[in-house]
Amino acid sequence: MKIIIIGGVAGGASAAARCRRLDENAEIIMFERGPVVSFSNCCLPYHISGVVEKEETLVLMNPQKFKMWFNIDARVNSNVISVNSNAKTIQVENTVTGEVTTEHYDALVVSPGADSVVPLFPGLEKIDNYCLKTVPDVSKIMSFIKENNPKHMTVVGGGFIGLEAAENLRERGIDVTLIEGTDQIIPFVDRDMSYFGQAEMVRNGVEIIIEDLVEAFDARKVILKSGKEIETDGVILAIGVKPSTGFLKDSGVELNERGYIKVDDNYQTTAKDVYAAGDAILVTNQLTGQPFPLAMAGPANKQGRLIADRINGRKINNKGYIGSGVVKLFDLNVASTGLSEKMLVSTGIEYDVVYAAPPGIVGIMPGNHLVYSKLIFEKDTGKILGAQFATNGAPDKRADVISTAIKASMTVEDLADLELCYAPPFGTGKDVVNKVGYIASNLNEGAFKQVRFSEVYDLLETGEQVIDVREAIEYEAGHIKGAVNIPMSSLRQRLDELDKTKPVYVHCRTGERSYNMTLMLKANGFDAYNVAGSYEFVKAYEEMMSYNHKNRKDIMVGNCTACAGQLAEEKSA
Amino acid sequence: MKIIIIGGVAGGASAAARCRRLDENAEIIMFERGPVVSFSNCCLPYHISGVVEKEETLVLMNPQKFKMWFNIDARVNSNVISVNSNAKTIQVENTVTGEVTTEHYDALVVSPGADSVVPLFPGLEKIDNYCLKTVPDVSKIMSFIKENNPKHMTVVGGGFIGLEAAENLRERGIDVTLIEGTDQIIPFVDRDMSYFGQAEMVRNGVEIIIEDLVEAFDARKVILKSGKEIETDGVILAIGVKPSTGFLKDSGVELNERGYIKVDDNYQTTAKDVYAAGDAILVTNQLTGQPFPLAMAGPANKQGRLIADRINGRKINNKGYIGSGVVKLFDLNVASTGLSEKMLVSTGIEYDVVYAAPPGIVGIMPGNHLVYSKLIFEKDTGKILGAQFATNGAPDKRADVISTAIKASMTVEDLADLELCYAPPFGTGKDVVNKVGYIASNLNEGAFKQVRFSEVYDLLETGEQVIDVREAIEYEAGHIKGAVNIPMSSLRQRLDELDKTKPVYVHCRTGERSYNMTLMLKANGFDAYNVAGSYEFVKAYEEMMSYNHKNRKDIMVGNCTACAGQLAEEKSA
Repeated sequence: MKIIIIGGVAGGASAAARCRRLDENAEIIMFERGPVVSFSNCCLPYHISGVVEKEETLVLMNPQKFKMWFNIDARVNSNVISVNSNAKTIQVENTVTGEVTTEHYDALVVSPGADSVVPLFPGLEKIDNYCLKTVPDVSKIMSFIKENNPKHMTVVGGGFIGLEAAENLRERGIDVTLIEGTDQIIPFVDRDMSYFGQAEMVRNGVEIIIEDLVEAFDARKVILKSGKEIETDGVILAIGVKPSTGFLKDSGVELNERGYIKVDDNYQTTAKDVYAAGDAILVTNQLTGQPFPLAMAGPANKQGRLIADRINGRKINNKGYIGSGVVKLFDLNVASTGLSEKMLVSTGIEYDVVYAAPPGIVGIMPGNHLVYSKLIFEKDTGKILGAQFATNGAPDKRADVISTAIKASMTVEDLADLELCYAPPFGTGKDVVNKVGYIASNLNEGAFKQVRFSEVYDLLETGEQVIDVREAIEYEAGHIKGAVNIPMSSLRQRLDELDKTKPVYVHCRTGERSYNMTLMLKANGFDAYNVAGSYEFVKAYEEMMSYNHKNRKDIMVGNCTACAGQLAEEKSA
Repeated sequence: MKIIIIGGVAGGASAAARCRRLDENAEIIMFERGPVVSFSNCCLPYHISGVVEKEETLVLMNPQKFKMWFNIDARVNSNVISVNSNAKTIQVENTVTGEVTTEHYDALVVSPGADSVVPLFPGLEKIDNYCLKTVPDVSKIMSFIKENNPKHMTVVGGGFIGLEAAENLRERGIDVTLIEGTDQIIPFVDRDMSYFGQAEMVRNGVEIIIEDLVEAFDARKVILKSGKEIETDGVILAIGVKPSTGFLKDSGVELNERGYIKVDDNYQTTAKDVYAAGDAILVTNQLTGQPFPLAMAGPANKQGRLIADRINGRKINNKGYIGSGVVKLFDLNVASTGLSEKMLVSTGIEYDVVYAAPPGIVGIMPGNHLVYSKLIFEKDTGKILGAQFATNGAPDKRADVISTAIKASMTVEDLADLELCYAPPFGTGKDVVNKVGYIASNLNEGAFKQVRFSEVYDLLETGEQVIDVREAIEYEAGHIKGAVNIPMSSLRQRLDELDKTKPVYVHCRTGERSYNMTLMLKANGFDAYNVAGSYEFVKAYEEMMSYNHKNRKDIMVGNCTACAGQLAEEKSA
């Protein structure tokens, strides 16, 4: 059996190693276009700041090790230029010598990854510009920085790579402007959760421009569609990627209109004995049944492994993908799993959303923090569809739990029932996941009604009754303009101050006290709504708007933080 | 509806608040024996070190707040001395005035918690001694410390409270000896995982004595069964707890022989309209169907809430409990979920175990660390039964994921399929959970055979072939005496150095390379076994044995740590 693998990073390298484990006698050849195999693409941005100090550590394996450890023939600088799936051959060009050779295969694994998209911007040649997808890319960036000592750099693109590039440039002391064409950074969460990340970036000195596009470049200058000009010393382009599948033209391997490889549940392409993995393929979404690209290291590794199983005649069980991700932005971490609202729009799935900001660890412990949380679930069934978390603590552990719950088709009621590890340095007696599960269960069974925090603006403008049930000391420290303060501690005695003929919208700091008061008001005959997300989410929204200098409602008075941390409801143990 | 709640901490307070949310008009009275309601018992040890600085912050709520916020009548210093479930009355003694009153109830919630066990040790009165279960307990400890400035204290008991007490005393600069009667500390994990915690405690200056018991106390002295005497200034007794259920004698509420309250799936006791929650009840184990006590804050809170649902006529869904826990021991964190081997012994369930020590985050990132992992699963079905993790990183997130998987009756194969959040500061492309899932799947389907790391001792004594496939530089830095070094990079070429007529036992640092080589040897006709846990687990075992000064095999040469961190297998990305 002769197995050829195209691509020597995540999916390819995993397929190669597993093929060897399953068949000691197979001939395995792995071709990699670039000069190195199996490098840590996810760590590349961290070399810019020096967090990953040495460039050579970014390379995880080399051809010698592949040979010695796995008896795998790994060939670098080897660009596969065509595949003939009828003849079962590939043509490979040695990018150093230019020599072209033909290799026969019994099974072919295609894991070519994706290339950076670099549009033909006018004037691009007049400015130092770099991508950040490969070890040579980061090498060039480091040479530029060391030789030119730039004071300011511009990052184009607010996805994973752009965000991590911006953070690591800033950690190096370089001023950074990040430009994003859509209306939010951190595309794997919804806009309302991206606020927290954007605010953290700005607090750490990154200028962020959203809803604007690069029009052109000039010497030390970026010119935006809006007319705005940015003086800058260099540019990192992290606009997006396209699958590196040009060599599959006329191969018999079917691609979609954007060049992604179509595979079946066995990761087999439309060509016999040709399998594909990684950033260049379309996987099936477990929740929607729709194909989508998922450029993540974990899934690529898994696909490589499963293809090796398949080539060796084993059955594989492909349940589809949901997508999980996390990003560190200075002291804030943002994690997500499953479907976002953005992704749900086109699916026709009827869903509901809850927001909460429970404490991540016991409130009296040092380092206590809130976990800004959003949970999305299917209406009526309560089936969990997705979740997003932003916090100075550990959003990844909450997203991981919910990812597991989604894989198991659990409902919001199941989340309330989970037994999660607790000790004061790690969490709270009822974890964030339990709490969002409780809130969603209550909402789903109709125990209370809610409006989103983002609806508060309109409610206030139209003169609706918005009641802030935090204690007076909190209200004085900071509140939403137009909200009337009737503390939870006296609301039962002051019901006559409310207009029973109109709806009552109740908020507190995080939504927990206002939930209690919403139920109390309902029991007393009021048409009561909890403001999901409450003061904390409105505050984050306002902070982001203050950076964007437009659409700002400016409805906040003061800023309440510390005093609220002492409140009993948040010291749960 | 008049609802009486006995006990004002986790279960009781949760039941009270939820009862109010579900019925604005109910009369709710909560009786608490102690002087405070709703305190953070889990945070008590952290006040000793000053991590939780102010004693008053340990108290989360007070009767005034219960009244103002929830319209709940919370009465402290109110000791319920009897329950008459026929008459639906309780008798309450005011512990300040001695006055006894009778109260009628429509529904009764019993959540009395547990008391510290204090055996009648000879001479106990001659030494300053304290428990650590209540706010007054910790008050007394703090007064003792401030007035006497002790140089050395002794903690009796190696469970949660004893361990946290020892850590926090040490953080205060006090020398500590911890005495544990069984053969291990950290009872919620198996002995082989407790090694890591014991080693960390000793590294931080806590003397640990296991398999010895307190015989008697004397002035400034602890006398052990072994004859050993310890000079000490004071003692904290954290030996265990017994349910505080004496007042239920003749109440109609059935207890087991140890005083735990029996409840049905609705948390109803054997007496009509009497429900029970928290540390004093027996819950049903989801995996074994057996009743067991589970003294944890999260389950207590949940039970209180569900009882409130039940009292208000709602159906509840009790799927049973599995138990999850975590403890911080200086820089090491230990987490567990589900069944341990100790618990499995008496169940008759056929199970298998895998060990691994994969990296917790990408190996080239600062702060990289290993996650010592143990996964337990049912033979053949692959159903997950339990998991234990010890690491300087985040064991809780791995245990939480597996806890969720157990709740969903997942198999080890499902673990391999999970999509967990990854970015270099948070994990690796294949997470620890995926990896233990892969290993267990392979073992369960018979792809390879293994022996446990603890079996290496006997194998070496009987002269078996034990092969260390780490590279020479690692072997030279430290190895197991008697293991023969044939590095993975040359093993294929040196097969003739092995005796094919005898089994070959293969180890590396963490079990990953040796797994590859076990498969290679098998393919070449050898009877090969992977040493599960490999060098890292043997090293931890030896370190613990060096502290216990007995049963030590002394089979380690040197200590290999840093060099191995650079190995490519552990830089997975």
